[in-house]
Amino acid sequence: MRPVGNGVTAAAGFLAAGVSAGIKPSGKPDLALVLSETRAAAAAVFTRNQVQAVPVVISRQRIRHGQARAVLINSGCANCLTGTPGRSDALAISRAVEQALSVRSSEVLLASTGIIGQRVPVAQIVRAIPGLVEHVDRAHHTAAAEAILTTDLQVKEVALQAQVDGRTFSVGGMAKGAGMIAPSMATMLCVVTTDAAVPAGLLRTLLVEAAAVSFNRITIDGDMSTNDSVFLLANGQSGAAIRPGQRSARVFSQALTRVMTELALLLVKDGEGATRLLHVEVIGARTTEQAQVCARQVACSPLVKTMLAGGDPNVGRIAAAVGSAPITMDPRRLDIDIGGQMVVRRGAVVPVSRTVAAQLLQADEIAVRINLHVGHGSGRMTTCDLTEDYVKINARYTT
Amino acid sequence: MRPVGNGVTAAAGFLAAGVSAGIKPSGKPDLALVLSETRAAAAAVFTRNQVQAVPVVISRQRIRHGQARAVLINSGCANCLTGTPGRSDALAISRAVEQALSVRSSEVLLASTGIIGQRVPVAQIVRAIPGLVEHVDRAHHTAAAEAILTTDLQVKEVALQAQVDGRTFSVGGMAKGAGMIAPSMATMLCVVTTDAAVPAGLLRTLLVEAAAVSFNRITIDGDMSTNDSVFLLANGQSGAAIRPGQRSARVFSQALTRVMTELALLLVKDGEGATRLLHVEVIGARTTEQAQVCARQVACSPLVKTMLAGGDPNVGRIAAAVGSAPITMDPRRLDIDIGGQMVVRRGAVVPVSRTVAAQLLQADEIAVRINLHVGHGSGRMTTCDLTEDYVKINARYTT
Repeated sequence: MRPVGNGVTAAAGFLAAGVSAGIKPSGKPDLALVLSETRAAAAAVFTRNQVQAVPVVISRQRIRHGQARAVLINSGCANCLTGTPGRSDALAISRAVEQALSVRSSEVLLASTGIIGQRVPVAQIVRAIPGLVEHVDRAHHTAAAEAILTTDLQVKEVALQAQVDGRTFSVGGMAKGAGMIAPSMATMLCVVTTDAAVPAGLLRTLLVEAAAVSFNRITIDGDMSTNDSVFLLANGQSGAAIRPGQRSARVFSQALTRVMTELALLLVKDGEGATRLLHVEVIGARTTEQAQVCARQVACSPLVKTMLAGGDPNVGRIAAAVGSAPITMDPRRLDIDIGGQMVVRRGAVVPVSRTVAAQLLQADEIAVRINLHVGHGSGRMTTCDLTEDYVKINARYTT
Repeated sequence: MRPVGNGVTAAAGFLAAGVSAGIKPSGKPDLALVLSETRAAAAAVFTRNQVQAVPVVISRQRIRHGQARAVLINSGCANCLTGTPGRSDALAISRAVEQALSVRSSEVLLASTGIIGQRVPVAQIVRAIPGLVEHVDRAHHTAAAEAILTTDLQVKEVALQAQVDGRTFSVGGMAKGAGMIAPSMATMLCVVTTDAAVPAGLLRTLLVEAAAVSFNRITIDGDMSTNDSVFLLANGQSGAAIRPGQRSARVFSQALTRVMTELALLLVKDGEGATRLLHVEVIGARTTEQAQVCARQVACSPLVKTMLAGGDPNVGRIAAAVGSAPITMDPRRLDIDIGGQMVVRRGAVVPVSRTVAAQLLQADEIAVRINLHVGHGSGRMTTCDLTEDYVKINARYTT
C-alpha cells in the first residue's frame, strides 16, 4: 500500500466538482458532486439518530439497489426537521442531477450538512447544478472536498494504492466534520471511491467493518448528528477483482480501513477548537465490548478533555471516568500510563516529579493506556481536547 | 412549610464549625464539622463510581449502623487513589475526631473533596481538630458551608420548618459541588440535618427517594465523581415523630425533598462557568424511565449547552439530542417548545421571527418542553450552560 494524491478522484473513472451555489451567506463553496463515469457498486452507513435529515432518508432507500453513479452534497443547510416540503426540495434537487447526468434517480445519492430546521434554497441549487456537472474533472477533488465543509478549518482528503493479483487499484476519499461528532455511529459526511471491482454485498460488509474501527472510534463532543453519512462507490475500472473470503478481500479491506482511519483522524485533528489528540487504549478488560465502552467513557469525559486543553495532568479524572463506566473492574488493580509513564499503579497514584508531570500532556498527540487487569479485552478511542474555542464556535454558530 | 435560616444547624441540637487547616494552599477554610448533641439516626447515599475515595469506603461501612454523631469534611484533597496509606490517613483523622468528641468510630462519618491522587496532610488536620471541635456552635453553619467549597463561588444553605401532629420540626442542609456533577448518582457533598425523630430504615428510604428527584435530576458536565456523598442525620430533638406509612412520613418526605431540590438547584446555578439554567421536561414518552433518559440526553448535550451559553436558539440541536436517546420515538410526532413558544411541531421546525428567536434564550432560566406523543411517561432534568469559563476553570484546575 502506498499513499497517493487526488483524494476522492484517486480511483480511475471518478470525477468531482465543487462550486458556490449561494447556500452559505459567506459565498464559500457549498455544493459538491462526485461522479463515477460508469455505474458503480455502492454501499453506505448512516447516522443512528432517530431524527434523520431528508437526504439520509432518501439515500438510505436508494442505496438498497447497491449501485450509484453520483453523490451530491450541499453544505450550509442540513435539510432536517423540514417535513414534507423538505422532502420535495430534496427530490427536486435530485431530479436536476438526474437530468443533467442522464441517470436514474436510484443512482443519485444525496447528503446535506449545516443548520437544522431551515429549508434548502432549491431554486439556487437547481440553477447551480448544470455548472457543477460541467465542472466535473479528475483534478477537482479538492474543490469538492472544500465545498462540503462547515466549521472545518482543513480540507480532508486521503488516498492510497494497493495491489491484488498483479493489478493495482486505488481507494480514496474525502470527509467533513468538526462538531457533532459522536462515537456510536457513522459520524460525519464521507465519500470513498475505488476502482476495484467489489460486489455490492461484500462492499457493504467491508464498509460496516471499516466504519466500526475508524469513524466509530473517534469522538469530538459525543453529540450525534442527524445527517451523518459515509458513501462507498466501487466502479471496477482498475480490473482488480475483490472476492469474498479471498486474499483480495483482505487486501481491499486493509486499504479501505486505512483510508477511513486516516480520514477519521483528520476529523479529530480538525475538531472544533482542538489543539491536541488523545488516543485512549484500554487493555485487560473482561471483554472487547467492555474495553470499548471504557475507552469511550474516558474519551467523552469533559473533565479529561479540558485537562488535555490545559496540558496539566490530573490523572484522577481519567480514573474517575474509568470508574463511572458500566464495566467489570476492580479499582485495586487499575494501572494507567500516559505516554509510557506509569501514573496509576494498582489503584494508587504514582508520584512523579513536577518536571515529568509538566511534560506528560505537552505533545500534539497523547497516548493514555488503561489496564483493567480483569481479562483480555482491548479497545481504543481517539478524541481531541475541549477548549474555550469549542465553546466559542458553538455558542456563536448561528440561526 | 416555611423557609428558615441557619442551614445545617436549623434543626435543634445540631452544631457546626469551619476552619482553615492549611490543606488549601490559598489558606481558605477547608475543614468542616457538623455535630449532633445527641446520637442521631443516620442515612447516606454515595457515588456509584466504581473508583471511590477512601472516606466514601469508610463512611459507607459505618453508615450501616444507622446512627452517627458527627460528619467531618475536608476540602482541598479528595483522598482518592491513595491506596493503603490513604486509608491509614483517614482513620488517623477519624481517631482525632473520636477522641476530641468522646464518640465511637462508627459514629463519625467522613467526606473529602478536592484533588485526586494526593495524600491528605494528616498532621495538619489532626492538629486542627481540637480547635474545630471547640468552635462548634449553632451560629457557625455558614463557616461550615464555606469550608466544604472547592471551585464553588457561592455558599449553599437551605432550611425550612414543617409540622406533624402539632409539633414543629426543621430540616436544613448545606452542599457543595460545581463541577464533576453527573445526573446518575448522588452527585456531590451534602449534609442535611433534622430534629424530627425518624427510624434509620425509614430515613434511608426517604433519602434515596429524595435524592432520585433532586440531585439525580441535575447535571453540570455529566462527569461522575469518586467522592460524592449525601448524609442525613435525624436526632429527634423536636419531638416530632415520623412513622412509616403515615401522614407524618409524607410531610417529612416533602420537607426533605424540598430542601434537597433547592440545594440541587443552587448547585446548578453555581455550576462552573454557568450563566443560565435549562429545565428540560419530557412528556408523552413511552415510560417514565424513557422520559428521564431523554431529558438527560438533552441536558447532557454539549451542543445544547453551548447554544444556551450563546443565547442563540438552534432547535435542531435539541431535536438531534432527542433522536440520539435510546428511546421509542417517532420524529414525525415530535413537538418542542421553549418557554411556551412552539419551535418544533410534528417533526418540523416552526419558523419564528428574528425578534421572537432573539428572546427565546435570554432569560436566566429557560424551560424546554419536549412532547414525544408516544405514551404518558414524563421526566425532567435541570442543567446549566457550557461556557468558555467552564473550560477555563477546568483547564487550569491544577495538579
